[in-house]
Amino acid sequence: MEIEKIVFAEKLALFQDLWSPKIVAQMNAVHFKLARIKGEFVWHSHPETDEVFIVIEGEFEMELQEKTLHLKAGEMCVIPKGVEHRPAAMDECVVLLVEPAGTVNTGDAGGERTAAHDEWI
Amino acid sequence: MEIEKIVFAEKLALFQDLWSPKIVAQMNAVHFKLARIKGEFVWHSHPETDEVFIVIEGEFEMELQEKTLHLKAGEMCVIPKGVEHRPAAMDECVVLLVEPAGTVNTGDAGGERTAAHDEWI
Repeated sequence: MEIEKIVFAEKLALFQDLWSPKIVAQMNAVHFKLARIKGEFVWHSHPETDEVFIVIEGEFEMELQEKTLHLKAGEMCVIPKGVEHRPAAMDECVVLLVEPAGTVNTGDAGGERTAAHDEWI
Repeated sequence: MEIEKIVFAEKLALFQDLWSPKIVAQMNAVHFKLARIKGEFVWHSHPETDEVFIVIEGEFEMELQEKTLHLKAGEMCVIPKGVEHRPAAMDECVVLLVEPAGTVNTGDAGGERTAAHDEWI
């Protein structure tokens, strides 16, 4: 397989839909996914895995049960497995998710905001 | 464990040494490591794992046997397991490495530039 660099700006030009992570890279069994987020997501947790959010553009709030983290570009957080969380962004924000291949965006919550499957771009 | 955000600028203020990755986060068995790089590293490969480089500040070159990738902030690359590579930076550059816990910086090459062990900051 040809080794190429991944340019976030080029990948972001390929989609506009919100809350629909797109896979841009894979390291072993771990996926790197770019997502545009705006508004409030659903409360959920991932019983089987930790999940990483790295802010690429803008800022967002990660609501946890006891507190809220305010994250902006140049910052990241790790949500441990099983911990309830809800991302929310006042204005559109771009995050890079890092999590095992097959992780579902709504975790244990399911519902209409579950992405059918994560798409490679 | 208290969940806190990780601020790259705060972490970078804690060290100045080059080619000595510092662990800033862990997702399952995967480490996220900030490294300052400048000059040429050694040619090496990681026979057991892929390795991710995300550029946080500046730019660097990832030399491969058939070509060289030029990467700058907002870009990343995945070096597949077993692939010989050598990072090199004309000016100081900050990268976020993502790789399994225990991955050694010099891979199969060893030698004096092997970091004794990766330190959490």
